[in-house]
Amino acid sequence: MMLSERARVMPNSPIRKLVPFADDAKRRGIKVFHLNIGQPDIPTPQCALDALHRIDRTILDYSPSQGILSLREALVRYYAGFGIHLTPEEILVTTGGSEAVLFAFLCLLDPGDEIIVTEPFYANYKTMALACGATVKTVHTDIREGFRLPDVEAFEALVSPRTKAILICNPNNPTGYLYTREEMLRLRDIVRQHNLVLISDEVYREFVYSDEPYLSAMNLEGIEDQVILVDSVSKRYSECGIRIGALVTHNKEFYAAAMKLAQARLSPPLLGQLVAEASIDVPQSYLKGVYDEYLARRDFLMEGLRQIPGVMAPKPGGAFYAMVELPVEDAEDFCKWCLTDFSWEGKTVMMAPGAGFYATPGAGRNQVRMAYVLEKKELAEALIVLGKALQAYNAR
Amino acid sequence: MMLSERARVMPNSPIRKLVPFADDAKRRGIKVFHLNIGQPDIPTPQCALDALHRIDRTILDYSPSQGILSLREALVRYYAGFGIHLTPEEILVTTGGSEAVLFAFLCLLDPGDEIIVTEPFYANYKTMALACGATVKTVHTDIREGFRLPDVEAFEALVSPRTKAILICNPNNPTGYLYTREEMLRLRDIVRQHNLVLISDEVYREFVYSDEPYLSAMNLEGIEDQVILVDSVSKRYSECGIRIGALVTHNKEFYAAAMKLAQARLSPPLLGQLVAEASIDVPQSYLKGVYDEYLARRDFLMEGLRQIPGVMAPKPGGAFYAMVELPVEDAEDFCKWCLTDFSWEGKTVMMAPGAGFYATPGAGRNQVRMAYVLEKKELAEALIVLGKALQAYNAR
Repeated sequence: MMLSERARVMPNSPIRKLVPFADDAKRRGIKVFHLNIGQPDIPTPQCALDALHRIDRTILDYSPSQGILSLREALVRYYAGFGIHLTPEEILVTTGGSEAVLFAFLCLLDPGDEIIVTEPFYANYKTMALACGATVKTVHTDIREGFRLPDVEAFEALVSPRTKAILICNPNNPTGYLYTREEMLRLRDIVRQHNLVLISDEVYREFVYSDEPYLSAMNLEGIEDQVILVDSVSKRYSECGIRIGALVTHNKEFYAAAMKLAQARLSPPLLGQLVAEASIDVPQSYLKGVYDEYLARRDFLMEGLRQIPGVMAPKPGGAFYAMVELPVEDAEDFCKWCLTDFSWEGKTVMMAPGAGFYATPGAGRNQVRMAYVLEKKELAEALIVLGKALQAYNAR
Repeated sequence: MMLSERARVMPNSPIRKLVPFADDAKRRGIKVFHLNIGQPDIPTPQCALDALHRIDRTILDYSPSQGILSLREALVRYYAGFGIHLTPEEILVTTGGSEAVLFAFLCLLDPGDEIIVTEPFYANYKTMALACGATVKTVHTDIREGFRLPDVEAFEALVSPRTKAILICNPNNPTGYLYTREEMLRLRDIVRQHNLVLISDEVYREFVYSDEPYLSAMNLEGIEDQVILVDSVSKRYSECGIRIGALVTHNKEFYAAAMKLAQARLSPPLLGQLVAEASIDVPQSYLKGVYDEYLARRDFLMEGLRQIPGVMAPKPGGAFYAMVELPVEDAEDFCKWCLTDFSWEGKTVMMAPGAGFYATPGAGRNQVRMAYVLEKKELAEALIVLGKALQAYNAR
């Protein structure tokens, strides 16, 4: 069978490619601490689970392609709480944030077009861009500089006639970096000057650990019609499995185009929409509890990593990820080895190899992404196991 | 904002484009009989609804990208009942049949590639193909010949070096046509001879009203490695909203490519998978009841249409659609008029204009697709309203 060019060039997910080895380790009775994937261990809000059990429909039917109106109205209220003012007609409910990214790319990128992303980046962006025949151009951010945004010149050097959009993830996955107000304004200026689109993935909006006020791309003045917001309820309500996200834009032309794709796939998941709508009215205490928990975990993880010789990690300002430099040459080999050849007291650790988050060949080879989605007691154990693993790996 | 070429050429869904007019009619207090969309009015099986209410997870988390193993195992049992023998590793659970089509196209079609489809066809195939930069080439089937498959020569005339696949929908949406064994073998020969892929959308497998045994493309000898099955639980269990479908293939290379896309979108909907798995063990009496109901509706619809002057419709052999020729010049204008300018005793009817299911300019202009997804009493009223509407429209 002759596969398409895109099928041949798309990478395997760096987050999921080691899964078979983890499964095998589990079959051998080894406990695997999952730091590889952003699957929170936090319970889904009770009001969401209650809504699930209250569903009394006798036909689980299609919903509107753009999503149920009452969900979109609830989202309007939610965004207003962040100073983002919308109408329900500016929100298109998608099957997870993933579908929002795919729709944005399909509507904006022709084969050969380019999109600028800061590196390291959420690896699935690249797969989605390749699926559209487009190319990801990367502005390098450096672990030694805490992944801060480089000067405008680094972006401008990449802008070509084929550049269609700049894509940011803020707070960032995988680095946890939070853009400053000044950095956001710089991005705004580049977008305006070169007539680009700014795609802003803000699914970690609830997890900002700095005192600086959060600035959404939707609130950048002067480019209101050039911004596409990618969102998801997955992380904030710990309901990754319901697959409910959103594409948000003031741009009517873009919305109409995305709507054609939305109609072609008929509708987003009904059950997830009912759960998501109930989640939006979660008591503030739930969100506060989740926030405090992640903040404590971040600090705990940072402190623990500092105590392992040769390990370096900038403190993340948001989200629940950290990019971590390890004292190994090839972190992918190390991550795999942890699952196939190592265990300590019947336990091991699974991390996402860093190189998969970089486009520059060789970059991030000694890094891993860790998601701090385990409770502190587990995180403490995982840190001990990691320390032992590094010792054993380097002593082979 | 500069949209991509595909965003500009993709059509609006012919099934959904009249929705705003229907919404408006409802706001004016008019009852609209929905014959436009394949949304069954049949209740979802009780065992599926029970499974929904029994979900006791406290975290609605990601599931494996290829779908939950126990669901894939249940599907293996289901397919075995149709003589299709599979392993769980040959089934990739998708977000509805729609995603299965999109993944198949993305993995097989490069920009400029061609796919052969019989016309009229499920309109979203074209949108998906255009999203991939590919072209749909159509073999015309004629309402006056009951939409039977034309001779092999009609297919071979379309095969070019860019042809990658033949796509069939069997039983067919929108025509209800069921391919004969001999037609399937003819298709097999073309696929083998030209080294193509046969993509077979068999989501209406349960709804076959002839005595001839149903032949799945998966059971065509000699092209086992060239067949991709597109499937969905939506129609057979009346659960369109849960968005659970499947890509099924013996071809490991194709599966691995589709898996990269599956990983990039993380996972199919968790809640839908739990409901789908429970549905597979639905009592045979449920499926028998649904089957008998659709069979009775088909016969009732055919009889009713025969009594409206100038209306012509071949009897569908499967699925729950009929393509119907109306005594009007422009069925889209008529369908819209039914929603904007007509009502009879406070009721009107909504149908999908036929032209949207054809690629040939002008073809199907006097046709509509009707989905017989209403109970007989409603269907009877809808038929009266249709007759009155045609009278009034042609008397203007």
